[in-house]
Amino acid sequence: MKVVNLHDVEEQSVEFNGDTVLGVTIRWLIKEVDGAPNFAMRYFEMQPHTYIPPHAHPWEHEIFILEGKCEITAGSESKNVCKNSAVFIEPNIEHSYKNNGDKVLKFLCIIPHVNK
Amino acid sequence: MKVVNLHDVEEQSVEFNGDTVLGVTIRWLIKEVDGAPNFAMRYFEMQPHTYIPPHAHPWEHEIFILEGKCEITAGSESKNVCKNSAVFIEPNIEHSYKNNGDKVLKFLCIIPHVNK
Repeated sequence: MKVVNLHDVEEQSVEFNGDTVLGVTIRWLIKEVDGAPNFAMRYFEMQPHTYIPPHAHPWEHEIFILEGKCEITAGSESKNVCKNSAVFIEPNIEHSYKNNGDKVLKFLCIIPHVNK
Repeated sequence: MKVVNLHDVEEQSVEFNGDTVLGVTIRWLIKEVDGAPNFAMRYFEMQPHTYIPPHAHPWEHEIFILEGKCEITAGSESKNVCKNSAVFIEPNIEHSYKNNGDKVLKFLCIIPHVNK
């Protein structure tokens, strides 16, 4: 069993096409080197009025909003999601995230191990 | 994209060896029929002073504590875990959960699709 509080996990910047995404951080809470056989749990914070630009990849996202609000666009669809909402984003669909609010957006994002 | 608030998902009882576990409920937030290719996101509530007895299975758990406290035993190890903690429980290890506190325990538990 591994137990870790998110405040004890290193906060890392998020890179995107070689640039740092301003105001956005990631913490890897459970990962392959912990022995997790199938998927990884990551924790994100997005400061108010920040944006993760559109991107796509062959793996899905399963997201849970812990605090704040997020406008998520996937393909041609945009939705405003709030605390206690779960979001499933299919593989290979272009998606982006906007924190339009005045509060820090906090969410979990679980992905399969990408290199398996 | 699928978005669902946990309050809009049916709350189900938890069965254990044919008996209902009193004071414990599960909501399946993201599941295989939603198109999720690899893993399912479930949300649990355990009322104060409730217990999920020891059990084992060939799949892992990745847990995130949303509210409350939990004593988790996995194998010979017991740990008290609190809000904002992530817990990884290995496959095939016997594990159990106790909510010894006076607050409702709320947590996410992600598992791989069991029948794949």
